[in-house]
Amino acid sequence: MTSSRFGRLAPGVRDVLPAEAHLMRSLKDQFASLVEGWGYQEVVTPTFEYMENLASEEIQEDKFFKFLDRQGHLMALRPDMTRPMARLVATRMKGITPPLRLFYLANVFNYEQPQVGRQREFYQAGVELMGASSPEADAEAVALVTEYLKQTGLGDFQVSIGHVGIFHGLVTQLNLPEEAAQYLKEALGNKDFVRVEEILAAHAATPEEARRALDLIELRGGPEILDKARELAQEGPAVDAILNLQQLYAGLSCYGVERYITLDLGLLRGLDYYTGLVFEGYTVAVGFPICGGGRYNQLLANYGYPMPATGFAVNLDRVLVALERLQGIPQEPMPDVLVAWENESMAKALTTARELRNSGLKVVTALFEYPPNRAKSEARTLGASRVIYFYADGNQEEFTV
Amino acid sequence: MTSSRFGRLAPGVRDVLPAEAHLMRSLKDQFASLVEGWGYQEVVTPTFEYMENLASEEIQEDKFFKFLDRQGHLMALRPDMTRPMARLVATRMKGITPPLRLFYLANVFNYEQPQVGRQREFYQAGVELMGASSPEADAEAVALVTEYLKQTGLGDFQVSIGHVGIFHGLVTQLNLPEEAAQYLKEALGNKDFVRVEEILAAHAATPEEARRALDLIELRGGPEILDKARELAQEGPAVDAILNLQQLYAGLSCYGVERYITLDLGLLRGLDYYTGLVFEGYTVAVGFPICGGGRYNQLLANYGYPMPATGFAVNLDRVLVALERLQGIPQEPMPDVLVAWENESMAKALTTARELRNSGLKVVTALFEYPPNRAKSEARTLGASRVIYFYADGNQEEFTV
Repeated sequence: MTSSRFGRLAPGVRDVLPAEAHLMRSLKDQFASLVEGWGYQEVVTPTFEYMENLASEEIQEDKFFKFLDRQGHLMALRPDMTRPMARLVATRMKGITPPLRLFYLANVFNYEQPQVGRQREFYQAGVELMGASSPEADAEAVALVTEYLKQTGLGDFQVSIGHVGIFHGLVTQLNLPEEAAQYLKEALGNKDFVRVEEILAAHAATPEEARRALDLIELRGGPEILDKARELAQEGPAVDAILNLQQLYAGLSCYGVERYITLDLGLLRGLDYYTGLVFEGYTVAVGFPICGGGRYNQLLANYGYPMPATGFAVNLDRVLVALERLQGIPQEPMPDVLVAWENESMAKALTTARELRNSGLKVVTALFEYPPNRAKSEARTLGASRVIYFYADGNQEEFTV
Repeated sequence: MTSSRFGRLAPGVRDVLPAEAHLMRSLKDQFASLVEGWGYQEVVTPTFEYMENLASEEIQEDKFFKFLDRQGHLMALRPDMTRPMARLVATRMKGITPPLRLFYLANVFNYEQPQVGRQREFYQAGVELMGASSPEADAEAVALVTEYLKQTGLGDFQVSIGHVGIFHGLVTQLNLPEEAAQYLKEALGNKDFVRVEEILAAHAATPEEARRALDLIELRGGPEILDKARELAQEGPAVDAILNLQQLYAGLSCYGVERYITLDLGLLRGLDYYTGLVFEGYTVAVGFPICGGGRYNQLLANYGYPMPATGFAVNLDRVLVALERLQGIPQEPMPDVLVAWENESMAKALTTARELRNSGLKVVTALFEYPPNRAKSEARTLGASRVIYFYADGNQEEFTV
């Protein structure tokens, strides 16, 4: 009781008070309702799993919240949902004919240095579309995240779209040693194009080749950049990636979401399981991506059920921060009516309260007998605009406060 | 990858597949909607906290999921929500005039021996009504949990109501040493009345006193038992408890929920923070309580903000099990329509899909071009009863499958 930590929270986690919690709930409800309308079905996985199921080459072990169970097995709080979803499908849903459309609303955990928009526990809303390899499947994922972000009320977001084949093409073309490939990945992840240029220059056969490689990976914009990319890219993974992005973009046009889309051939997401499309969503109000996703055609094979897949996750805490910065702190829901009474009429008052609730109103009832004036001041404190007061003789009176 | 645990889950936690996840979501939505109608506001607390905030005399340390953070501080996954809620209110909501009506929907963790209806991670829906000490406040909590259980579709549940003052009265009256009081508590918790009788007999001054004490604590039934209890109880905590239960029962009559209520003077819940009313809900379909709650007037003082409080938590996993045993495994939501196309009409088809979704239908769209017959078989696999197919020339045709 005298510990300096008593009553405090650990760094990077937080309490969510009513106004924000209400907004968070409506973000979740909106998501579930939207994706169910697109045929997605919810699943839930445990908060912690054996480390074997979650471990990745990419996520450093020290980013996990780990603990030992009583048998001495290493467990971890899930750092994302894609691996648990792949495990679930591979172990529990093999009998179902693909494609599978699944969604989740889940908290995930990351031992990051905490800052605004970067919490150690945060909420994700996401979908996985498994068993379909077509560009149309990728277009569905991108169109769906775009539709969701629109519905949340974020006006100005952009979704950047890239493809890991561009990076793999350069690695192949320049015959980059593993270490240099890793440096290039990190430099692209940090959008450090000075460093990218250095790496390319050091490994290209000619300054001209380095120039073309840099021009390719710096391409950013509308569908016209894909034509330029075709001129700059060499046959192989890069050209395949560009063709794939052209088909994807054609699909996105059919959904009518082009104005939210920016092609970005230097985009590389920091998760090792992506095999094709990668994308991230941004809005001016927060400094980190508000969503991310892509295609991962190899991950399910790791769990013994080879199947192509695509999907995304929205970081709901970041959407919340963005909405608050754009629209101000939300208002918490207030009751509509306070029902109070003299004791003889308590039953009658509670019957009325029930009827008002059934008609859709938020109704608070008194917690002991008090007179009309006290009822009015209680209603003011609560933020309720109406009082319905029941006298001992059964008569009722309504006040506006 | 070759570990025997790879792909498996830890004991006591589980995946929830679409049919159950959909039912779980509707249980949560029903709860949020109901309690908001009664003026409760949601809050969210972190999944883990410093052990100092969660520790209890009652919960054995080995029931916690514990881990050390990088600074060597002991953390734990929350075993219930009442302590975190008390901490939150005491540290973040001191400025708000009570009473506070708060609710949560949260997963909690308990290192119990797993069995059906007893998981190591499970979901709770609960409320806390803080800052009100009246029997009407307790009646609101009991009436609200009753209303919720009714709305879930459980027909046959019962809420048992007791009061810790009955137990404290016996301890005082018989001057029970601490050890004997602990034995009595355990025997009552296990409903082992043979053992209860032994303990009472060993400590009562006369066989007559032991008999009366046993008669008191075995009382179970409607409000008439409270009159009998008045005759059997000695002045002090037990009589105060009986008066309190009489007032509470009068309040519950005003809510019209008597038929769900059984008074049980031997009821003692296993959490050390209760100071008055305690209650538990049961249904024939599961062997553990489906909900529990009571009054805890001292807990907030531990966090530096003395305030009376009452509340309850519903174990949603147990309600789910009960509903499944009563009504069978639920049906997962199926799409209404499959929209498919020849490529030239993809944009038109997706526009139609959007319109159908806006009208409230669940619509799955094709993930590549295929002919009408394939569309019909895909719809059958999906469980959709309608196909809308778009030909290259822009014409559409509808099939029922």
